[in-house]
Amino acid sequence: MTLTLKTPATSPLLARFLDVRALTERLATRLSPEDQTAQSMPDASPTKWHRAHTSWFFEEFLLDPAGGYRPFDPTFRYLFNSYYEAVGPRHPRPQRGLVTRPSAAEVGRYREHVEQAVIALIQSGLGQAQVGIVELGLNHEQQHQELLVMDALHLLSCHPFGPAMIDRPVEDDPDPVPLTWRAITGGLYEIGHDGVGFAYDNEGPRHTVHLVPFEIAQRAVTNEDWLAFIADGGYARPELWLSDGWAAVQQHGWQVPGYWQQQDGQWVAFGSGGVRPLRRAEPVCHVSFYEADAYARWAGARLPTEAEWEVAARDVAELRGQLLDPDRLHPGLTGRHMLGDVWEWTSSAYLAYPGFRPVEGAVGEYNGKFMSDQHVLRGASCVTPAGHERLTYRNFYPAAARWAFAGLRLARP
Amino acid sequence: MTLTLKTPATSPLLARFLDVRALTERLATRLSPEDQTAQSMPDASPTKWHRAHTSWFFEEFLLDPAGGYRPFDPTFRYLFNSYYEAVGPRHPRPQRGLVTRPSAAEVGRYREHVEQAVIALIQSGLGQAQVGIVELGLNHEQQHQELLVMDALHLLSCHPFGPAMIDRPVEDDPDPVPLTWRAITGGLYEIGHDGVGFAYDNEGPRHTVHLVPFEIAQRAVTNEDWLAFIADGGYARPELWLSDGWAAVQQHGWQVPGYWQQQDGQWVAFGSGGVRPLRRAEPVCHVSFYEADAYARWAGARLPTEAEWEVAARDVAELRGQLLDPDRLHPGLTGRHMLGDVWEWTSSAYLAYPGFRPVEGAVGEYNGKFMSDQHVLRGASCVTPAGHERLTYRNFYPAAARWAFAGLRLARP
Amino acid sequence: MTLTLKTPATSPLLARFLDVRALTERLATRLSPEDQTAQSMPDASPTKWHRAHTSWFFEEFLLDPAGGYRPFDPTFRYLFNSYYEAVGPRHPRPQRGLVTRPSAAEVGRYREHVEQAVIALIQSGLGQAQVGIVELGLNHEQQHQELLVMDALHLLSCHPFGPAMIDRPVEDDPDPVPLTWRAITGGLYEIGHDGVGFAYDNEGPRHTVHLVPFEIAQRAVTNEDWLAFIADGGYARPELWLSDGWAAVQQHGWQVPGYWQQQDGQWVAFGSGGVRPLRRAEPVCHVSFYEADAYARWAGARLPTEAEWEVAARDVAELRGQLLDPDRLHPGLTGRHMLGDVWEWTSSAYLAYPGFRPVEGAVGEYNGKFMSDQHVLRGASCVTPAGHERLTYRNFYPAAARWAFAGLRLARP
Amino acid sequence: MTLTLKTPATSPLLARFLDVRALTERLATRLSPEDQTAQSMPDASPTKWHRAHTSWFFEEFLLDPAGGYRPFDPTFRYLFNSYYEAVGPRHPRPQRGLVTRPSAAEVGRYREHVEQAVIALIQSGLGQAQVGIVELGLNHEQQHQELLVMDALHLLSCHPFGPAMIDRPVEDDPDPVPLTWRAITGGLYEIGHDGVGFAYDNEGPRHTVHLVPFEIAQRAVTNEDWLAFIADGGYARPELWLSDGWAAVQQHGWQVPGYWQQQDGQWVAFGSGGVRPLRRAEPVCHVSFYEADAYARWAGARLPTEAEWEVAARDVAELRGQLLDPDRLHPGLTGRHMLGDVWEWTSSAYLAYPGFRPVEGAVGEYNGKFMSDQHVLRGASCVTPAGHERLTYRNFYPAAARWAFAGLRLARP
Repeated sequence: MTLTLKTPATSPLLARFLDVRALTERLATRLSPEDQTAQSMPDASPTKWHRAHTSWFFEEFLLDPAGGYRPFDPTFRYLFNSYYEAVGPRHPRPQRGLVTRPSAAEVGRYREHVEQAVIALIQSGLGQAQVGIVELGLNHEQQHQELLVMDALHLLSCHPFGPAMIDRPVEDDPDPVPLTWRAITGGLYEIGHDGVGFAYDNEGPRHTVHLVPFEIAQRAVTNEDWLAFIADGGYARPELWLSDGWAAVQQHGWQVPGYWQQQDGQWVAFGSGGVRPLRRAEPVCHVSFYEADAYARWAGARLPTEAEWEVAARDVAELRGQLLDPDRLHPGLTGRHMLGDVWEWTSSAYLAYPGFRPVEGAVGEYNGKFMSDQHVLRGASCVTPAGHERLTYRNFYPAAARWAFAGLRLARP
Repeated sequence: MTLTLKTPATSPLLARFLDVRALTERLATRLSPEDQTAQSMPDASPTKWHRAHTSWFFEEFLLDPAGGYRPFDPTFRYLFNSYYEAVGPRHPRPQRGLVTRPSAAEVGRYREHVEQAVIALIQSGLGQAQVGIVELGLNHEQQHQELLVMDALHLLSCHPFGPAMIDRPVEDDPDPVPLTWRAITGGLYEIGHDGVGFAYDNEGPRHTVHLVPFEIAQRAVTNEDWLAFIADGGYARPELWLSDGWAAVQQHGWQVPGYWQQQDGQWVAFGSGGVRPLRRAEPVCHVSFYEADAYARWAGARLPTEAEWEVAARDVAELRGQLLDPDRLHPGLTGRHMLGDVWEWTSSAYLAYPGFRPVEGAVGEYNGKFMSDQHVLRGASCVTPAGHERLTYRNFYPAAARWAFAGLRLARP
Repeated sequence: MTLTLKTPATSPLLARFLDVRALTERLATRLSPEDQTAQSMPDASPTKWHRAHTSWFFEEFLLDPAGGYRPFDPTFRYLFNSYYEAVGPRHPRPQRGLVTRPSAAEVGRYREHVEQAVIALIQSGLGQAQVGIVELGLNHEQQHQELLVMDALHLLSCHPFGPAMIDRPVEDDPDPVPLTWRAITGGLYEIGHDGVGFAYDNEGPRHTVHLVPFEIAQRAVTNEDWLAFIADGGYARPELWLSDGWAAVQQHGWQVPGYWQQQDGQWVAFGSGGVRPLRRAEPVCHVSFYEADAYARWAGARLPTEAEWEVAARDVAELRGQLLDPDRLHPGLTGRHMLGDVWEWTSSAYLAYPGFRPVEGAVGEYNGKFMSDQHVLRGASCVTPAGHERLTYRNFYPAAARWAFAGLRLARP
Repeated sequence: MTLTLKTPATSPLLARFLDVRALTERLATRLSPEDQTAQSMPDASPTKWHRAHTSWFFEEFLLDPAGGYRPFDPTFRYLFNSYYEAVGPRHPRPQRGLVTRPSAAEVGRYREHVEQAVIALIQSGLGQAQVGIVELGLNHEQQHQELLVMDALHLLSCHPFGPAMIDRPVEDDPDPVPLTWRAITGGLYEIGHDGVGFAYDNEGPRHTVHLVPFEIAQRAVTNEDWLAFIADGGYARPELWLSDGWAAVQQHGWQVPGYWQQQDGQWVAFGSGGVRPLRRAEPVCHVSFYEADAYARWAGARLPTEAEWEVAARDVAELRGQLLDPDRLHPGLTGRHMLGDVWEWTSSAYLAYPGFRPVEGAVGEYNGKFMSDQHVLRGASCVTPAGHERLTYRNFYPAAARWAFAGLRLARP
């Protein structure tokens, strides 16, 4: 987290605060109180929990330190802390689905209570550090908006009849764009965030890397591409896979990307609109790092490093594609944009940049403590809120995760 | 299941049908839609599921065979079958908590739909076999009423702040009744159901057993008794325990009965009224078979066999104590009654009586297929619905189960 | 354990001691030091461990209390205690295969050390209680001789190439004996051990049971019978199985008895002689209780209770069949004998007889503490040492165990 | 693997072959046949398996392709393949401890058979590719020599009485060397193997990296340092740990490095000489990546990247310390040497260097397929065979592994 807003800009901040908070609730209205309570796996959280946790964040790091704040319910500090060890004990993550109380409606009242207090505080004037916390809290909430959608879809995918989260028309299925490549010259580059505007702490410090010349694909790998991989025995040939990846294929019985299935000889995929015919031109989505890596090997290519990805993204003309549309969630995508569409697995492990230092205090637990055994994804997906995407953004997941909106883009020497 | 109602007695049956169905809903109103959806462990089911499953039973075994019935929703046959293999595939039990749809409200409409159809069928006149199915369906629903309460309490007990299911006044804490014994002479006895009135198939055939003389306690073991067991190191002395019981103590870290804890040096217990001071005179409850067995050994006594229990219960004057009161759920109990109060673990394994034959067809899966590695409990508890208790009733649970309202009564030579 | 030898009979006891001890070593010579060390599952123990544990038993319960005994190695008390809580801490059972030291040869020296001390004690004259301990120790060792063979075969069965424990000629494959039945009249019978000669404590007290008339098969179920069960979809029809049994079929993927497989369209079975053609007339072996129960249901019959089995066995003319032959281990069997051939699953749970009291002290942990969730097998198998078989013997295993030499005999009303 | 030996140098190669093979057997003689058979965890292999697998490697990749070779036993191809998918099916790794046959002695004969064939082939003249395979096979065997010692120690550490692998005198306990730092200037450096002499494929290609200035400690972290970390609550303060690291601390109950314990108030450590007093000046060993990372954070420093480590090691005067001494195994170490002493965890994930390509064919499975979720260690340990250590060597283990001879060296800006 780099706090660079030198002067409090109260009014735009307030407007942004209201916008972000409203979007969370707008997403949640797609889900019943029952939907909002269940937890489909330890890595996913109930919608209700996301709504409460993003409010707790403002309570814990902004309102409580500011003084004079009366908590909505003192038990919520325990219930809705996610992983901040410095804040104190917390409810175990795998049991979030058992916290049936407070109700979804009560969480709505909690959100309003927190919002009123934040609005009052903003209107009374914030110090610079407080502006930074609000900004961090809003980015934090935007991040949870994407998680909310991911987690809700995973839950609905566990229902034997794949119910839809939203109604939307069936899209047509145009022909995929042919694959073309762009060459990037080798040499020294600067990557990482330059400190202008908001960024998470893990995006800096900006630093020099040395790259050898490479080429990068001008669109993401499509569903049609992936069907060719499947048809060529991609999931049955150990030589294409990392050792741990091959073990994951065996253990989970992977034979297709997440949410895909065959119905009456046709490929369909579960998504926010329920179970729908697969669209050939769309970027493949819900694949693990292991699958992305195996696909790249099969294609005679490789995944880009995160430095290569960032350098390559810098001078793309149409950088931004489809970001979060709460009325559609997963519309037709083209895969040509590096921000929007899908997150893209890189070959980079999620590690500290040279000279990285986490922020002091509990908010410093935000990013740094996850820097082991995770893999960097770059870009942004169609469920990333607009304004939250950045060229230097470092998303990360374990290698076997498939419930993120994650695909891949090829690189080669 | 013994079908003995020779003539359709439509009106009383209809009245009973309406009563039983209404009680289920009355219990469910104590729980929010969120409470009704969550599943706290594979052995427990969501309230919503109990409400739907008891309706599915009438659909599957009464309405569908009767012809002309339009199912409320054809997917419910898959979602709300419990374990009837003959009926077809079903949703896996450990994932009942992920079925967030239908909603609790929709399940209410499902119940009404089924009820209207059953009422119409009853009013149109039932055949003898159909009367039997209605009777079985009502007993089945009563059984699930007790499960609904057990499962809901288990769920709420997993909440870190132990919320109450109902509001009720704090009871006083009278002195326990002293322990006295009653002698039963040895010889040949008949046990099991005689076929007059409703009974489950596993309660028969009635048959002869040979008993040696024994004595049986005139009240159940109390919380005060149990405190003495704890104080004497009962949970730390392997010589008191069965080998599997001692392993369970180690594995689960048992040191007190289920739902007990110490707060500020005082014993409290979680129950339907939330966390409350322990009452010394009440029968101990939420103990496993292993604990009951170890207690008996510690007390220089043993558990009765189910035959001993049934013979002993036959000429008790005040047999019936507190049965299900939906406004209190777990009121002050005396432990003197053998029906009501708590289920009592016996030393008997749950096995077929000589000559046992399950009913033909899918309803025959009701009892017989569970006859291995379970332990018989006799009597009835304070959450058993009135009219469902019987001297010949054979309840059964695995040895480590603690979420039933189960205690014990001592026997000795 | 009933100690009934009123006068020390030193010489025959000594001879028996030497015989039993020698047989253990004779069995062990079939196995290399490497074979003797490995542990194939938590329920099985290494050969080396059996050899040491049966010596520890004499050390712990005879030599040490007698005074003046110098232990061979003081660490062995920890290493070779099996489950006697009263004796003190012990090495965890699942890790017996990691105790590579002492070596197999060193265990041989340990055995000799213990034997010399026991011989000296016997020759110096034993008290009555000591005679009882020696007798118990010898029965204990005989029990472990059968376990040693069972466990060693299980280990070798885990080897991908199924090595033989002994060389023996291939037997011919005669036609099975037709199935005939014997009727037993109902009424009161006495069962259990009468106190004359050695018996384990769990075989008494002798007591009265009431039986209804029944018939019992005059031979065990054969491999040929079992092939018909398989051919009729026995492993694929849930209605034939107990609920837990059906779950076990799914979990373990059972489709045939233990150690069976098909090679080039032919049925073969792994045994002490390696992988061999299946013999049709032999009693089926290495089936679980669940399988035995399902078979009986499929055959329109049931398993006998242990009381029925004992009553039926009493007046069989040719009671004893093939008992342990250390040079063949699993020769051709006929299935007509109730002692020898195979252990027979009964429908009875392993519970205390009325009035049962375990022996005082640590040796009292021998039997009673296992009286939950196990199933009684009656008879004796072809790897039970001669002299160890008894009509009242109560063997017991969990319902899913398949590595014992266990089959079944049918009963019917 | 870079095959750079342009001309066959038969005689030195033969001498080296004989030396390496003899050292394996010399290590194995420290272990009984029983020791050589057991497997203490899925990640460790039996000694017997190491001895056979290193022979299988020559059989599979050298002798069999050369033609005219008669395998010692055709089943060994299945039993002793480690993880080469391209070679065919293989025995599951977690069950290596159940392969009691062949015996340790038989494995000795297998080794001789393979050696005779390799010697004959070498003497008959090798092609360039064959020289490369022999060289790879010898490096492979050297790698397994270290694993053999690691795995054997882990097995013996599971024995409740911690037996010694070798007898050796107790070393004295000198004062630790004070910690000093060496500064390295920033800029562009070349790292990775230059292709002269043998190296594994993962050590290349040599490539340019950009480093910022840093300092590196001139000795490894010592046991005395680690005691200060423990005394300061190092294992109880979540803020010092990566999130996964803190979870590992909880899960495994880590409170000290592997093999440490307290006896009568004194610190002792298990090692090749059994349980011995801890030596303060020695490099701490048997710590996981998580512990190394937490220690560095506690010390206000960090782990070096592998590039920093390699650059720093290049101009160290006394680079080589104590490498494998088969008569002592873990002698007194100083921690000043970067090769020998202990492996040093770096902050780098184990990933491909830019332009990395694995070797074609099955031997290409050697390194590349493990490039996910592992952490690079640099240097060499006191049980690394002399001649196997290299400045560019990239060792790797999962973050929680503790049975390697692994410690750490600090870096700082």
